[in-house]
Amino acid sequence: MKPTIKDVAERAKVSPSTVSRVLTGVGYVSAATKEKVLKAVDELGYNPNGVARSLKRAKTQTIGVIVPDISNPYFVRVVRSIENCVSKSDYNLLLCSTDDNASKEETFLRILRERRIDGLIFAPSRLELGSALKPFLDANIPVVLVDRTITDVEVDTVVEEGEQSSYRLVQSLIEMGHERIAIVNSKPYISTSIERQRGYERAMLDAGIPIRPQYIQHGRFDQETGYLCGKRLFTLKDDRPTAIFATNNSILYGLMLAARELLIRIPEDISLVSFGDLEYSELIFPRVTAILQHPDRVGTTAAEVLLARLNHTHVEEVQKTRRIVLPTDFRCGTSVRNLRD
Amino acid sequence: MKPTIKDVAERAKVSPSTVSRVLTGVGYVSAATKEKVLKAVDELGYNPNGVARSLKRAKTQTIGVIVPDISNPYFVRVVRSIENCVSKSDYNLLLCSTDDNASKEETFLRILRERRIDGLIFAPSRLELGSALKPFLDANIPVVLVDRTITDVEVDTVVEEGEQSSYRLVQSLIEMGHERIAIVNSKPYISTSIERQRGYERAMLDAGIPIRPQYIQHGRFDQETGYLCGKRLFTLKDDRPTAIFATNNSILYGLMLAARELLIRIPEDISLVSFGDLEYSELIFPRVTAILQHPDRVGTTAAEVLLARLNHTHVEEVQKTRRIVLPTDFRCGTSVRNLRD
Repeated sequence: MKPTIKDVAERAKVSPSTVSRVLTGVGYVSAATKEKVLKAVDELGYNPNGVARSLKRAKTQTIGVIVPDISNPYFVRVVRSIENCVSKSDYNLLLCSTDDNASKEETFLRILRERRIDGLIFAPSRLELGSALKPFLDANIPVVLVDRTITDVEVDTVVEEGEQSSYRLVQSLIEMGHERIAIVNSKPYISTSIERQRGYERAMLDAGIPIRPQYIQHGRFDQETGYLCGKRLFTLKDDRPTAIFATNNSILYGLMLAARELLIRIPEDISLVSFGDLEYSELIFPRVTAILQHPDRVGTTAAEVLLARLNHTHVEEVQKTRRIVLPTDFRCGTSVRNLRD
Repeated sequence: MKPTIKDVAERAKVSPSTVSRVLTGVGYVSAATKEKVLKAVDELGYNPNGVARSLKRAKTQTIGVIVPDISNPYFVRVVRSIENCVSKSDYNLLLCSTDDNASKEETFLRILRERRIDGLIFAPSRLELGSALKPFLDANIPVVLVDRTITDVEVDTVVEEGEQSSYRLVQSLIEMGHERIAIVNSKPYISTSIERQRGYERAMLDAGIPIRPQYIQHGRFDQETGYLCGKRLFTLKDDRPTAIFATNNSILYGLMLAARELLIRIPEDISLVSFGDLEYSELIFPRVTAILQHPDRVGTTAAEVLLARLNHTHVEEVQKTRRIVLPTDFRCGTSVRNLRD
């Protein structure tokens, strides 16, 4: 007779639901317990596909996607790629936009949970989500974080390299003779924001350049932040920066609008570098020196990780949480003035 | 004793559900029946707020939004404005993107229907939807069409003026001496596409300029269509057009990319006008002569119409289907060459 989930649970001395958590890879299980369960599975010659089937909920063919800002072309392209990928498996997306507002985010998590989705792809608004994901994990609904990571729950995550890319970007400014380098960034509790700032600080530190507090500007990952911080930095009396690092595309756009309004020329009067590129950049002058992100790859990878969970195949594949860090590219544009010339 | 919905139905010699359709304004009712019901309401001094309450379903505080293309900045801004407006009344959006694909559209209509939404804002992929909206109307779930209209069901609609605006745009080209004017448009069964084409044809006709078949290019409202049709038009051997009318922002963008690739200068080699403006147009040269749309106003108005239905207030207000046509603006840019100079 084929072994059942109960047999595995008994042999591993855990509850059947713990076995299911281990085999679906969803929900918290300690490393020791995980090992015990997988050992029991091996010893009993347990067929995980059978488990998978027995654990299967009624499918809705619907995947929830929560992003911070649907008006940001980066997330638009992430969502498009997710959709292109999952629609081949006949899944449909329900899309929600949180404005990086924690309470909106919780509401959407609740709504999607109540609406019975098969899986969730989610760019969280903060590093620690507390119990917000618990109902999904408890119900064995796979969750994949995209673009941003969290620290308090272990779930599959697909992000782009942030710190080293930012380091390189700021270093390229320093190599051109810049020292008065400002950064315009988002909130200090969003993982991408933290990583990009860390890259900036480390590049300055390694070059022995002191970081001036007035050069570190925080707001949101939006155009308004770029515009307002730009105006502030451009009009500093004594020590106007010679270069600014925009930590995302929307901030860059706001900075460029502010520069345009104040008749500040790029790169003659101010140099600009950016994490992420502008949409329509082929038509925009000057081409900005930037870290090129790959939202299509990010979205596709996140969708593939989720689909693998939904079809949970082999024990070896599903047992562990995956954290995928995708590489970025560096593009040298014409937005930086060489101060050494 | 207060009159009930049954009393109204009996007096008007219709079913109670017909009374409810008239009072909520949702679902088809003939003009004659509508009049009978409203007469009975008046005569009995019936309180429609009471009706409203009695007909109220369990609310989910969720509004479905279906748009053709979430990567089009126009719809992104429509959706943002809807969200800004309805979130004040504690509604949350579930957003779906159809790619103007009729079968995807039907799937999303089904999914949203099953997920119990309170209302729907919807940009349909075609002029005739058949029975696709029936389940919503039957369930008294208000539907507001946005940006695009349909002909086979009577529902609230919020659109922007299309034909006359296009007429004016093409006329501005003719006034500058252009006669070889091409149009790059989307499908001939989308209302906006039809109206913009009609404006083009009427302007040409009124000026006595024959329309050449090879100047009418059809594809989708996307960048690829602009790019491919642009390449086709730019490389016509004998009768290259001197001007092109792009019927939306994405087509315009594709045309500009094609021109850039073929080293065709705007406006020296080709003049361009567009229905709708590019995102980031402040940073893009040349500024295109365009019909400026107002997606924020469109989204807000659609949301307000829907909220009014959801809170259905007075009989006078709710009895009739509303069709709101918002005005556009004309912006003279530098993308048109004056051939009379």
